[in-house]
Amino acid sequence: MERVLNTAQKACPFLHNASAATLRNLSTKSSSGTSSSRLINKAQQCPVMGKAMAVQTSRFHTTTKVATPTPTVPRAIASNESKKAAVTPVSHNTTGNKFDYESFYNHQLEKKHKDKSYRYFNNINRLAQKFPRAHTARPEDEVTVWCANDYLGMGRSPVLIESMKRTMDRYGAGAGGTRNIAGNADLHLRLESELADLHHTEGALVFSSCYVANDATLSTLAGKLPGCVIFSDNQNHASMIQGIRHSGAQKKIFRHNDLAHLEELLQSVDVSVPKIIAFESVYSMCGSIGPIKEICELAKKYGAITFLDEVHAVGMYGPRGAGVAEHLDFELNATQPHGGNGSVMDMVDIYTGTLGKAFGVVGGYIAGSASLVDMVRSYAPGFIFTTSLPPAVVSGAMESVKYLKRSGAERTKQQLNTRVVKDRLAQLDIPVVPNPSHIVPVLLGDAEQAKLASDTLLSEFGIYVQSINYPTVAVGEERLRITPTPGHNEEMIDHLVESLEKIWSRHSFKRVKQWEAEGGRAGVGIKDASKVEPIWTDKQLRIGKVSETSTQTLASAAASV
Amino acid sequence: MERVLNTAQKACPFLHNASAATLRNLSTKSSSGTSSSRLINKAQQCPVMGKAMAVQTSRFHTTTKVATPTPTVPRAIASNESKKAAVTPVSHNTTGNKFDYESFYNHQLEKKHKDKSYRYFNNINRLAQKFPRAHTARPEDEVTVWCANDYLGMGRSPVLIESMKRTMDRYGAGAGGTRNIAGNADLHLRLESELADLHHTEGALVFSSCYVANDATLSTLAGKLPGCVIFSDNQNHASMIQGIRHSGAQKKIFRHNDLAHLEELLQSVDVSVPKIIAFESVYSMCGSIGPIKEICELAKKYGAITFLDEVHAVGMYGPRGAGVAEHLDFELNATQPHGGNGSVMDMVDIYTGTLGKAFGVVGGYIAGSASLVDMVRSYAPGFIFTTSLPPAVVSGAMESVKYLKRSGAERTKQQLNTRVVKDRLAQLDIPVVPNPSHIVPVLLGDAEQAKLASDTLLSEFGIYVQSINYPTVAVGEERLRITPTPGHNEEMIDHLVESLEKIWSRHSFKRVKQWEAEGGRAGVGIKDASKVEPIWTDKQLRIGKVSETSTQTLASAAASV
Repeated sequence: MERVLNTAQKACPFLHNASAATLRNLSTKSSSGTSSSRLINKAQQCPVMGKAMAVQTSRFHTTTKVATPTPTVPRAIASNESKKAAVTPVSHNTTGNKFDYESFYNHQLEKKHKDKSYRYFNNINRLAQKFPRAHTARPEDEVTVWCANDYLGMGRSPVLIESMKRTMDRYGAGAGGTRNIAGNADLHLRLESELADLHHTEGALVFSSCYVANDATLSTLAGKLPGCVIFSDNQNHASMIQGIRHSGAQKKIFRHNDLAHLEELLQSVDVSVPKIIAFESVYSMCGSIGPIKEICELAKKYGAITFLDEVHAVGMYGPRGAGVAEHLDFELNATQPHGGNGSVMDMVDIYTGTLGKAFGVVGGYIAGSASLVDMVRSYAPGFIFTTSLPPAVVSGAMESVKYLKRSGAERTKQQLNTRVVKDRLAQLDIPVVPNPSHIVPVLLGDAEQAKLASDTLLSEFGIYVQSINYPTVAVGEERLRITPTPGHNEEMIDHLVESLEKIWSRHSFKRVKQWEAEGGRAGVGIKDASKVEPIWTDKQLRIGKVSETSTQTLASAAASV
Repeated sequence: MERVLNTAQKACPFLHNASAATLRNLSTKSSSGTSSSRLINKAQQCPVMGKAMAVQTSRFHTTTKVATPTPTVPRAIASNESKKAAVTPVSHNTTGNKFDYESFYNHQLEKKHKDKSYRYFNNINRLAQKFPRAHTARPEDEVTVWCANDYLGMGRSPVLIESMKRTMDRYGAGAGGTRNIAGNADLHLRLESELADLHHTEGALVFSSCYVANDATLSTLAGKLPGCVIFSDNQNHASMIQGIRHSGAQKKIFRHNDLAHLEELLQSVDVSVPKIIAFESVYSMCGSIGPIKEICELAKKYGAITFLDEVHAVGMYGPRGAGVAEHLDFELNATQPHGGNGSVMDMVDIYTGTLGKAFGVVGGYIAGSASLVDMVRSYAPGFIFTTSLPPAVVSGAMESVKYLKRSGAERTKQQLNTRVVKDRLAQLDIPVVPNPSHIVPVLLGDAEQAKLASDTLLSEFGIYVQSINYPTVAVGEERLRITPTPGHNEEMIDHLVESLEKIWSRHSFKRVKQWEAEGGRAGVGIKDASKVEPIWTDKQLRIGKVSETSTQTLASAAASV
């Protein structure tokens, strides 16, 4: 047995690193009597065998599976996505009259396989010393990462890491409790002060993640405000959608960035009724930017408050990295960086942001008035009843926020690299969804093509770009989402562009002119569309460089990769 | 100005550490034109000034506040906790016909102040090198922590911290993406394998926290299972309650640990209908333990699956720290530690656990069948759309889980200390809610008394035990929740017990005999109640010591504190 395992291990790049003990353990039949062993479960994650396994599994389930009948689940169940509970539905899908849970789970998974939305996670281990390189399942196999949200490479900055190590030595690995019970350290309070200062607000509150921040804040706030109506951009992130759902409040969805539609909906509700307009600054999957000032003006006119998700913008926009709201009055905020200057920043009621993307660590937060923050702190179960972030995570995030307030080098270099990638792809007529931000969404328009492009980049060209399929984007708008960083050098950009060109040629993937012939898709190939200008202007990019006075260790390091 | 700030800073122990710049920044009036400055916001957190401020604020709000009328919010709004949205409610609480959000927030906060449920967070900085000591707002003021959930002191273990530092050097501070996009490292997969092995399940899945794990899993699972009915223990944690709410499924609440009531409710639903029984092993606030085996038997009989939250038990119970389900067949699982042995562990369908309490870091997980885990992985927004845990956090948690599988020294020492504290308090007739676990809930039965006891322990005796008030426990059952660790030495236990005795005498707080005279409360002073035996038997505690073969560095360190 041991020898077989050792041989298998050597032959298989996927399990190469697993110990014989792990394999033995994996190959043990589960004790619950189901037919899947842990090894099969593991094998389903293998990039080579995963697909084959899926096909085999689906065949297996309809033909040979065990003694109990495993009927195809009736369509009525398969489509039962409604949340309404029926007390005594018709008996179906049962084993000896009892519900067959395992068959149900498998049926749900088969649906994912069938509609191509089943996700195979790539094994990606981002190397701090070689940013933006990563090793895959085998430490000797390295690739260049072109899709991470560590947009500025702060995750490997010594500024953060040395602080985190010192904090762990002093305060340990975990917080040891909720904020209310033993988990509220001075560091948490200091980080919240830094964030309030960043956004020019009275207060801020840190959560486990921005998913939790959005969910907890929207559900608590809209759930408490009497008769609240929420106006939500139709491209809002899942966390906001969940928060809105969980609030139980009435929601009205406006077309993406469509001010006229938003106003029409606002007009339909009495001015005295509490209202929340929930939207984003940078929309992650298409790179579009919300009209913050105009939405705030509408909010004021109709008695609404604004809830602005700056998750993909904090650290990245504005003279101090506060996000797009800060960026809109760039020079004003650069010269009067502590608020009270009448900029658009003062018009936004609630900001949410993350510590896990440009800031490089993990966690999320809200920023707003002292009373709002205190109310959420006092009422939101998702904040109250959870272990607080480890002191080391908090200290790392705080150092990152502080550093990016001073240093604009990383974000300007990131924007310059973004421009280069977009320009190079445009020259090749490779379709990029037009947008003014740092996201480079390369359109495929087909789930299998997107996966093929992603798999080929990884296996053949040593480039990791995850394909983005339904439900993250609409069916027919599948894409590769490329995120340049200041750490990508010219050689890497050349290699990316050339690899995409080879793949596009080899598979005759659609170019811009073909999309145009088809009438356009997801903003690509729209006739007579006005050119989208980057929100970071030429002048600001120069300002960013010239005004840079702090040590440029990171930027230099990035440039020398 | 600068001099005034410096003088104020030296005089004030609360702001002692703040820089002049911070104070200047704090004292800036907010730009949004509200009356609160950041300094007032900060001052509300001061243990000395906070209460005075609150009184002043409430007076201020009803008398002098600004030009706009700030009416007392009508009772109908104040009690509007229902989630049903009304499209055009009566216009109220408005400024110029628009809704006055700030007044609404303040009113919500005043409610908390009035019912004594407003939380003042203590500034507690747990010192890794001096566990279980912490410093408060001033680094020179140290206290002994008696209420953290770092039950075994693993948060300061070199086993974890060295691994976390190495991982940060190699893989950086953050994961850089969701599990699907660049945030799925080998470490995540290995941790999940460790956890599946711990619980004898086919698979496991890691989340940002166990709050998220419970919420996401219950809402996804119960939301998808057609016509699902959830049976929920009435003492279940807020995260489960939220998950159940968010699923939209029908729920039936059974009395705490009441098998007869649970069976009665199960009988009311057709056997073919999918059902989830959601419960805990160790209930955090009262220390009671769920009848796992009996609930699983009922589940089998009525065609339900079991969802068992072992958050307060993992690392703490069983020969390998898998929790109470493992503990129930202690010797069997000690000799056959990898499952397939027919123990109670095999009867549970879904486990949830935390990496943030006994394991000392942060994060949560579920463990169950491969298909179940894959389904949750594929469908739960709370898992899919969030940045994954940092590699260093994952490596620390993994080392902790591995270490506590081998070493029983910490959990046995913890149990022995628990016994000592409970025995000593019993001798003094100080009321402890009887329970078989490691929690020592000292009953006050009054919110202000509980806060007074907690504040006095902190300010006078250098002991930090948070008071637990409504809504975490029922009104009238307010308590101090004491959690002994292996790091508390005899001297610390003496000091705790003596301090409590002094406080009980000084304020004539009720003792057991007084509760008995009143007919008992929260299990205290119940006449003719049978004695509650600890679940860790004398024999097991000896076994724990004798079978210990791994290095006892931590235990020794703990003993030498």
